[in-house]
Amino acid sequence: MKALKEKIVNEGKVLSEDVLQVDTFLNHQIDPYLMKQIGEEFAERFKDDGITKILTLESSGIAPSVMAGLSLDVPVIFARKRKSLTLIKDLYKAEIHSYTKKETSEIFISQEFITEDDTVLVIDDFIANGQAALGLIDMVFQSRAKLAGFGIVIEKGFQKGGDQIRELGIKVESLAIVDALKNGEVTFRE
Amino acid sequence: MKALKEKIVNEGKVLSEDVLQVDTFLNHQIDPYLMKQIGEEFAERFKDDGITKILTLESSGIAPSVMAGLSLDVPVIFARKRKSLTLIKDLYKAEIHSYTKKETSEIFISQEFITEDDTVLVIDDFIANGQAALGLIDMVFQSRAKLAGFGIVIEKGFQKGGDQIRELGIKVESLAIVDALKNGEVTFRE
Repeated sequence: MKALKEKIVNEGKVLSEDVLQVDTFLNHQIDPYLMKQIGEEFAERFKDDGITKILTLESSGIAPSVMAGLSLDVPVIFARKRKSLTLIKDLYKAEIHSYTKKETSEIFISQEFITEDDTVLVIDDFIANGQAALGLIDMVFQSRAKLAGFGIVIEKGFQKGGDQIRELGIKVESLAIVDALKNGEVTFRE
Repeated sequence: MKALKEKIVNEGKVLSEDVLQVDTFLNHQIDPYLMKQIGEEFAERFKDDGITKILTLESSGIAPSVMAGLSLDVPVIFARKRKSLTLIKDLYKAEIHSYTKKETSEIFISQEFITEDDTVLVIDDFIANGQAALGLIDMVFQSRAKLAGFGIVIEKGFQKGGDQIRELGIKVESLAIVDALKNGEVTFRE
């Protein structure tokens, strides 16, 4: 997706060979117009898949997912990293291990919002080792809903997550695939 | 805002005299079309205030804020409840005490995204005792930006937060003000 790649080149900061900071438009400050374009692009790529729900993970997945939900005319559910006052029982849970933070945490969704009648598009901001993605997919399987596929804003193509999910036979659509972060520069996959 | 109040009446769950659960369209599952309407309503109410940035708090503030940002054509910054891998230094911080969770926590934003040249609209999903709101406002003051006002999706009018902020001379626009949660029913302020 051209507008996204341009934004990454112009505003992304390569902090190390593993870490791309996109805090000016996705992970801290959000560019609403770019999010709208991203939402429309996901909608276009999944328009024939009969999507009834979008599932994402708080917090950075919410903006692109809500815009995709608007384009596809379906609700968005965001999995929570912490239980809330009103999110207590009848939950699907999954464990996520973060290699960067070196910790394992749980994520939750209420069972009432995804059922076996749903066809779910999972969306997230980044995929690297794929741990968050596998947690989200696991919850879709628990619900017995149909998994239509996985939409990713930025895939770190030099880490295994995206390909691991493709190998499961799941449709994966990444709007930008970064193949390397070297010498402060971003190299995209063609 | 009529569409919002109808949604609260039809889908909100009164869990106690203090707690209104709106997990079907705002706090867990999100209704993207309603969020678009909410964003447009905030934009209408603040269109003459010269807004340059919207500040909100993860996670439930993000969806309405991004839609308001789209309508007002300005970026959105979401304050984080936890430091991230790339959010480390040059931060504004504020402490928030949660009466419901009985805990005090810190929230953060990067100093680079709000400066003294900005005019900031703060948006959040709920206001009750106003602790989160005061934390967000405190960060705007730290940045020396101009505070244009506070946009709230649902105000608990029977708690002091909203009026406390009005008494500071700050413009507060709540799209629905709930005056009571009794016998399982929601009473709105006229």
